[in-house]
Amino acid sequence: MTEFDLIARYFTRPARRAALGVGDDCALINPAPGMQLAISSDMLVEGRHFFSDVSPYSLGHKALAVNLSDLAACGATPAGFTLALALPSIDAVWLQEFSRGLWALADRHSCELIGGDTTQGPLNICITVFGEVPRGCALLRSSAQLGDDIYVSGTLGDARLALDALQGKFELPADVLAHARLRLEQPAPRVALGTALRGIATSAIDISDGLAGDLGHILKASGVGAQVDIEAAIHLIAACAHIDWPKALFERQELLNTVFSGGDDYELAFTAPPTARGAVQAAAVGTQTAVTRIGVIESEPGLRLVDAQGQLITARFNSFDHFAR
Amino acid sequence: MTEFDLIARYFTRPARRAALGVGDDCALINPAPGMQLAISSDMLVEGRHFFSDVSPYSLGHKALAVNLSDLAACGATPAGFTLALALPSIDAVWLQEFSRGLWALADRHSCELIGGDTTQGPLNICITVFGEVPRGCALLRSSAQLGDDIYVSGTLGDARLALDALQGKFELPADVLAHARLRLEQPAPRVALGTALRGIATSAIDISDGLAGDLGHILKASGVGAQVDIEAAIHLIAACAHIDWPKALFERQELLNTVFSGGDDYELAFTAPPTARGAVQAAAVGTQTAVTRIGVIESEPGLRLVDAQGQLITARFNSFDHFAR
Repeated sequence: MTEFDLIARYFTRPARRAALGVGDDCALINPAPGMQLAISSDMLVEGRHFFSDVSPYSLGHKALAVNLSDLAACGATPAGFTLALALPSIDAVWLQEFSRGLWALADRHSCELIGGDTTQGPLNICITVFGEVPRGCALLRSSAQLGDDIYVSGTLGDARLALDALQGKFELPADVLAHARLRLEQPAPRVALGTALRGIATSAIDISDGLAGDLGHILKASGVGAQVDIEAAIHLIAACAHIDWPKALFERQELLNTVFSGGDDYELAFTAPPTARGAVQAAAVGTQTAVTRIGVIESEPGLRLVDAQGQLITARFNSFDHFAR
Repeated sequence: MTEFDLIARYFTRPARRAALGVGDDCALINPAPGMQLAISSDMLVEGRHFFSDVSPYSLGHKALAVNLSDLAACGATPAGFTLALALPSIDAVWLQEFSRGLWALADRHSCELIGGDTTQGPLNICITVFGEVPRGCALLRSSAQLGDDIYVSGTLGDARLALDALQGKFELPADVLAHARLRLEQPAPRVALGTALRGIATSAIDISDGLAGDLGHILKASGVGAQVDIEAAIHLIAACAHIDWPKALFERQELLNTVFSGGDDYELAFTAPPTARGAVQAAAVGTQTAVTRIGVIESEPGLRLVDAQGQLITARFNSFDHFAR
């Protein structure tokens, strides 16, 4: 199979929204009047972002999911993406499954593949995604306001739980591992919630490197600080899952670590004024996405954790850094 | 140095044209009314697209140049790009030089870096570039017309000459190698010519995989064939360079191979009706880019080569395929 056969067989469909899709020097899109284009790029590397034995279906899903999660954090509606793929060799079964996972998620979000590149090399997947957001309505990191509530969507910690179990740090019951692994390998980007929060949330970010680090980006960009209730935060551990997160297995500090520096969650952290609590709940209900209020924006810089009695507790958390040892 | 320090130090500048640049979940751009957005992605892998000892300055240049060349082939004006970078480790000297090469070319084309990703992994550079073109004016591969002239910009074969010499296939005089190597490692994308050809050229493509294969894409997409004059084509070998291409070193068949399947040239092949010869020359002169007429579009499918006497000659050329052995 040649490079062109590969593209034709697995990665080409007729353009629906784009003016011109795969097959020319460039793709062409016609931005709608009054819309801004939101653009994000994520690169996934074997051994760094996924295990070598991950199913190619899951990998196709996740490579697009992490990009859609960035659109969600901006409140943008997915429109299209490019895929650049370095492959050690052409493996028809792998390509079939990878593209099946990719198309399934792309179709769910009406996000079409408009172009890209393939080459031989160590496995590397780079997707650049494009979404639309009405001009001036994008959710940014930099506009959290004093007194805003802080929210987190869904649950945190499942991906970290799966990662630790797969790396042999502990054993999990089969149903717990299966659920956690699905969250690690096939995260569901919060696109519907993100767009529903336009005009409601004052700031947003997607949680890919852990809540502490990612909320920290909002605080720094907005020039504010935050107080977070650790009981509410720990409650985020599988609060809405169908199975019980095995909290009994863990020390309290481990639970905190999991929530605050777990990583790979792809939930949204966002802020909104207390006057918008009803609107936030309506957005959550309307998009069938759980949302938990965990704290408040304060003027003093930094992230402060308080217990149920309102007492400050001391803790340090790391944000994920690809170059840290 | 952390991942965030790295981005801040080497890859962040204030956004000028973009509504929002590096530093949030997404970049935001405001497409101008009436313009289409042209988008292209290229991934460069060590050992496949560049030698491990290439200067990082050249690599920064080339990674963007090959993408700008795709915009040129569409007649689009560069606007911005994202950069996703997998690095084995953080090497401050390498990053300084890589970013210097990247910025120098980006500045020359007013193309700003608006976002991206960095991670640890085998060296891989993936750039996605965005350009603007008035709606309906993009140069496509699919609209070459019967009777059109076929043109090629600049010169062909220098990159292949350098590659072969660097791989020890033959020796070259130092000045010849230096010139050819610059063409291989720092190609000049034909952006000015591409935009000048809007409304003049009927089709265009950039020559990255060799003239035979890339012109072949135009023929196939347009449902036509072509006759090409091999004397005119061989004349493309350094026809305009300051130094003499050492033609005497080569057999005739080697010269043909170099022109038709050399690769890495980043010149434009394009078609235009005979009535537009004056306009093509004006575009060439106005952008200080040599342009050579090498053949004509015919109805019979396929690429036919003729000699100075108009006699058909038989030859087969390969197009570059990243997965071919």
